Amino acid sequence: MQGHWKQKKSYSETASGANRIESAHSLTMTEQQEMNYCTQCGAKVVLRIPEGDSHLRHVCPQCGEIHYLNPKLVIGCVAEWEGCLLLCRRAIEPGYGLWTLPAGFMENGESTAQAALRETSEEACASVSIEQLFALVSIPHINQVHLFYRAQLQNAEFGAGEESLETSLFDESQIPWDRLAFRSVVFCLKSYFKDRHSGAFGFHESTLSPP
Amino acid sequence: MQGHWKQKKSYSETASGANRIESAHSLTMTEQQEMNYCTQCGAKVVLRIPEGDSHLRHVCPQCGEIHYLNPKLVIGCVAEWEGCLLLCRRAIEPGYGLWTLPAGFMENGESTAQAALRETSEEACASVSIEQLFALVSIPHINQVHLFYRAQLQNAEFGAGEESLETSLFDESQIPWDRLAFRSVVFCLKSYFKDRHSGAFGFHESTLSPP
Repeated sequence: MQGHWKQKKSYSETASGANRIESAHSLTMTEQQEMNYCTQCGAKVVLRIPEGDSHLRHVCPQCGEIHYLNPKLVIGCVAEWEGCLLLCRRAIEPGYGLWTLPAGFMENGESTAQAALRETSEEACASVSIEQLFALVSIPHINQVHLFYRAQLQNAEFGAGEESLETSLFDESQIPWDRLAFRSVVFCLKSYFKDRHSGAFGFHESTLSPP
Repeated sequence: MQGHWKQKKSYSETASGANRIESAHSLTMTEQQEMNYCTQCGAKVVLRIPEGDSHLRHVCPQCGEIHYLNPKLVIGCVAEWEGCLLLCRRAIEPGYGLWTLPAGFMENGESTAQAALRETSEEACASVSIEQLFALVSIPHINQVHLFYRAQLQNAEFGAGEESLETSLFDESQIPWDRLAFRSVVFCLKSYFKDRHSGAFGFHESTLSPP
């Protein structure tokens, strides 16, 4: 139950690009005017390059606080059961009705692997054992980095969490390629099947440009 | 010139733990009272679990904005030149005077590899070609994930950036193990030499507990 995924503004990198949603996370610094007030003292912030820095930051002229905005990690699993992969059909925007790997924003206080376990449990009511980090996808224009682990389902029990309409296992021939929600998921699944055919799983990295 | 690294509060996971500095980034949610005002409307925020969420968030009772706090990525390089590795001696706290790999907070609008290149340029005035992601270290108690790439220096030109006292190449026997600034760097360097002895570089993952 990741609040993030319910924010219509927060996840904006879709597979088609057709319903791409801009957000505070997805704006370049020159567009990032959405921070108006200092979190510390409540004064109006200004945009400037702090001394010794090279980037524009939201700075508080009253208390001096510098507010940094950094990329967010989205973490998920390629979870396998008897050769099939677990996908979730999204019950929320963006990508409502489309299929995705179980994944979501990493929370403070957890490891990357814990985030993958939690998201798989929340979105697909599934327990998995994590194997290896499989893919990293940088998406600079929305300030996100997506990580996917290979994992094994511990049993055949799974189901739709609050943010999923349904969950299902797909073998390679059944993957709904034209109904996948996000390009990072397309990259991850293609890499996965390529590796599986080659007989060895590696690590795959990609950077996505705006669609 | 990464402002982040100049904030005394922002990088708090040292190798010794002796000079560990707590920060807004490093606190658990129950301690995270440092956000006082809404960035959107300037009203006082409250801590509560939003509907459908499972985590405490800073929520604005006036405009309804939910403020999410997520882990930050610190990205750097294990950069090699003729069998030696490039280290930087820190000119800033935490870890002033101690050695580290060139690394720093990933910025919005860049890929993970671009962050590694930029940090290596800023801290060690060095140009590298990125090879492969080598290590991922989760540090849940300070809400950070550290990524290190293997890289090759493009030439023997390097020097101290603004945040470094000096930079130098070290062969394995010269690594200043007792004067390394961060545990993630210790993990990365140990994994690196282990792999190099074995003849093949892999990918290494670790989660650090509080010291």
